Parts: sequence; C-alpha cells; structure tokens
Amino acid sequence: MKNIRPIGTGTRICAIIGNPVGHSLSPAIHNAAFAELELDYVYVAFRVEDVKRALDGMRALENFRGLSVTIPHKLEVMKYVDELAPVDRHIGAINTVINDNGRLTGFGTDGPGALKALQDAGAEVTDKHILMLGAGGASRAIAFTLAKDAGPAELNILDVDGPVLGRLAADLTSGTDVAIRSKILTDKALSDAMSVADIIIHCTPVGMHPKENASLIPKTLFRPDQVVFDVVYNPLETCLLADAKARGLRVISGVDMFINQAVLQFERFTGVAAPEGVMRRVVMEHLTT
Amino acid sequence: MKNIRPIGTGTRICAIIGNPVGHSLSPAIHNAAFAELELDYVYVAFRVEDVKRALDGMRALENFRGLSVTIPHKLEVMKYVDELAPVDRHIGAINTVINDNGRLTGFGTDGPGALKALQDAGAEVTDKHILMLGAGGASRAIAFTLAKDAGPAELNILDVDGPVLGRLAADLTSGTDVAIRSKILTDKALSDAMSVADIIIHCTPVGMHPKENASLIPKTLFRPDQVVFDVVYNPLETCLLADAKARGLRVISGVDMFINQAVLQFERFTGVAAPEGVMRRVVMEHLTT
Repeated sequence: MKNIRPIGTGTRICAIIGNPVGHSLSPAIHNAAFAELELDYVYVAFRVEDVKRALDGMRALENFRGLSVTIPHKLEVMKYVDELAPVDRHIGAINTVINDNGRLTGFGTDGPGALKALQDAGAEVTDKHILMLGAGGASRAIAFTLAKDAGPAELNILDVDGPVLGRLAADLTSGTDVAIRSKILTDKALSDAMSVADIIIHCTPVGMHPKENASLIPKTLFRPDQVVFDVVYNPLETCLLADAKARGLRVISGVDMFINQAVLQFERFTGVAAPEGVMRRVVMEHLTT
Repeated sequence: MKNIRPIGTGTRICAIIGNPVGHSLSPAIHNAAFAELELDYVYVAFRVEDVKRALDGMRALENFRGLSVTIPHKLEVMKYVDELAPVDRHIGAINTVINDNGRLTGFGTDGPGALKALQDAGAEVTDKHILMLGAGGASRAIAFTLAKDAGPAELNILDVDGPVLGRLAADLTSGTDVAIRSKILTDKALSDAMSVADIIIHCTPVGMHPKENASLIPKTLFRPDQVVFDVVYNPLETCLLADAKARGLRVISGVDMFINQAVLQFERFTGVAAPEGVMRRVVMEHLTT
C-alpha cells in the first residue's frame, strides 16, 4: 500500500467521531484510499462526548472537511447540521457530515451502502418481496433507502420487539409509498414470510459474537432462487450465510455494506471515485487477522 | 527524512490556526519531528475566523492535543483558554495552546525561544545591558521573558512610536523588577544606547523584505564585544547581521528563535525532547529554496 503523503497547509482533514473510537477501521480505510489516489487529505479519530461543541469546532476549522459519525452520536449529530435530506430525517440517524465553508450537511450512507451491495451482487430489488429481520437502526436505514430508491413490491418486517417494530412500520407507511407488512417474529410468521420473500435482509445481532453459532432462519425455509443479505460482517460468513450458501442461495455479506458506506463517504469527502479495491483490502486485512 | 507514520485511532492531532495559514512552515516542521521520533502524532493547518468556536471544538475533540496560533489570533485566543501564566498575560499574546482532556493551557514560546537562542549562542544575559530596538509584539515577548527569567541589569528600549514604546515601558516597569529605560529612536538616542549595550536585540521589520538592504544601526556604532540578535529571519543574514559580523561581533539570526519556538511547542505537545536538528533542516530547506 502507498505511504501517506506529506501533510501541509492545504491538507484537508476528515475524522471519525464517536465514543469509543479505539476500534474503528475508518482511519486505516480512508487514509489508504487517500494515499492510493494521492489526495491531499488525512483522516483521524476523535473520541467525542460533547457533539455540539465538536460540530461547532468543525465549522470554525476551515480545512476540516468531513466526519464519519459512529455510536453513540448518530442520532444527536442530526441536531447540529444545517442540511438534512428527508430520507435521513425519516431514518433518524446519520453517519456522515460534510463541511462546506462552515455549512454542514448530514446524511447516512448505511442504507445506500446496503442498496449498492445488493446491486453489485446483481440482486434486483424493484418489484421484489423483501423480508427484513429486525427493526433496529440498520433495518430503518435499509428499509427507508430501499423504499425510497429501489421500488420494492413490499417490505415485510419481523422483529421480536413490538413497539420498535410498530414505530418502524408506521414511519415507513407514512413516509414512503411502498407496501409495508410487519409481524412479531414467530416461527409461523417467519415461515410465512420466507415462502414469499425474494430477498432476505438480516439486521439483528444474531450470528455476531457471542451468538456466532446461531441463525434465525431454519435451513429448510430457504429456496434456491432467494438472495440472503446479512448485515453482520464479523464473522465474514455468518451461520445464516453458510446455511443459505449450502442450500444454493446467492449470499451477500455485511462486509460489502460496510465497505460501501465508507466508499460513499469517501466520494462525498473528496468528490472523486473511491478506490474500492484498496478500501476492501484494508477491511479484509483487519477482519481476517 | 522519515515517512510519516500510519494514522490510526490513537493518533493525536496538533494544528496551526491563523488566517491565512497557507505559508506556514509549521506542518512541515512538526510532522518531520513526529516522524523522526516515530510519535503517533499528526500536525495539520486550519484557517480559522471564529477563534472561540475553534477552541471550543478543540476541547470536544479528545485527540486534539495542541495548537500553534498565528496572526491574527495570538491576542484573542487568550480569552478562551483556562490557564495562562502571568508572564503571558503581561505580554498580551500567546502562540501555543495545549489541551488536557478539555482543559486548555495557553502560553507563548517566542520569548523563551529568543532566550534559548541567546543562551545557545553563549550570550550571557544576567547583569548585562540589553538594547532593544522596537517595542512591538516580538519585543514585548522577548523583553518580558528576559526581565522575568534572565536577570539583565537593564533593558533599554528604543522605538519611533511614542505611545507603543510608552506602554511597553510602563508595563515592564510595573510588571518586572528590572531597570527599564525607553527613548524615542533618534540618532543620538541610538548612539548613546549602543555605547553601553552588551546585547542588541533588533525587533523591527527593517532588514526584512522590502527593506532587506537597510539596517537601523550605523556600522561605526558596533563594538566587537557586543552580541547582535536580529529577530528577522528572512533573509537569514540581514544587513544588520552582515554589518555586525564584519565588525567582528557575535551574531544570532532570527531563524534560531523561530526554530526554538517550534522546539518548545513540540516538547509541550509531546512531552519528549524535540529532534532539533531535523526541525532546523526543514526550516533551512524552506528558507533557502
């Protein structure tokens, strides 16, 4: 990988803010991409408690170009930006802030990153039946993005948490034109939903450490023409994806969404096409060592 | 020179703020020093208009360790730090801010940088008669530092601007224990002052572009046992220094003060001894090309 460029007075700064930020891969990913394209940018990490002050500071620091925003600040940061797209208001969380001479634009790249992962894998969303497992933050971002930008026939959402599920379903129904179904996640509801789903998007922590040996979907429910997308990316191949693959389904790992959200941020930071291969290599090196 | 280290989530950030900052050597100097010692720091430049917001932001961005402050913010920035030494209050300007978990300490390294330049050149200040030409910002910083830390017998200050001169003399008289003289700069006053001065410190823009062929001091006034220190560093050898050298005097260039102020900042940023040779090399490369 190329060395980072010398830093001078024209260098633009991007950063991840969160609390904690110690385990973030973002500095490694973005700096490798800046170096690859020889762009005069540098990407650092700031642990932040006072989000308002941090964003105010960003406005005042002219070369401070962009932020990635992570837990726990993805919601609060929305309060302090000057511009926000309706879809991001609906989702209720953002992961990116761009600074144009003190004017801050916020947006999310998780939903678009998931959509790009589906598209790159050749999974057509338009007019398709989408089953979403989980109604939390990742699910909200993906559901709104698909509903707004990809024209699915239907979003069918299952979750064990009734109130969370109800809120997402209500928000999607009022905020988009897509047919929304929602049901408490039971064996029956899952089996019914699986029987009509074209694309299954898994957005719960099941399959991630410490539940890396679990999957919500019994193998017998898979049909070979289905696509399964798991937002979990650690492990790279979850139980769910291994089972689906074994049954001949097309599978998409959460790592593609993770890489894509960074790719989309990078392109907004810099205005140039991201070196996706380099960014993927950095992610893979970190996830497999 | 060594390459800059990979930047990760633990990297600490230092920056110069000013307006403009485009010509600053500070990023080159400090990044070369960080690289030399393999310290996990990076130094960038931010053009800033709203100083208060910038400092508030610094408090909120945990890894934001230190600031160099340049024109026009050296006075205003004092209002927004939490801690300030009495000597810096007297000087009325600072060039450095350190962030300890949101608590900001401000101080100046110009005066201490000048004193270190004198000491490194073997010029004893204690009990000596010091002639200072000019009563502006650089003169204030140096005069207060020498008066507080180096025990001169007397500071004799000459300037063409009566009110500026009067203020500095009054501030030094009330704020320090050293004997202060001040006179409007005339041929007679200069000749009288030169006849008793052990060390001459030149703090006016004369000798700097576009006055690079001028010097305030006629050659005939020099005595070989005097030391001449010119705060001007571009050109590296001013007319004043060339004349003094030709008369056999010991001379000190402003470049030493400039390097020292950066060295002292670096040591406060990092807590370790600065690689002065590397920092000097960067400055010299920029000034001679």
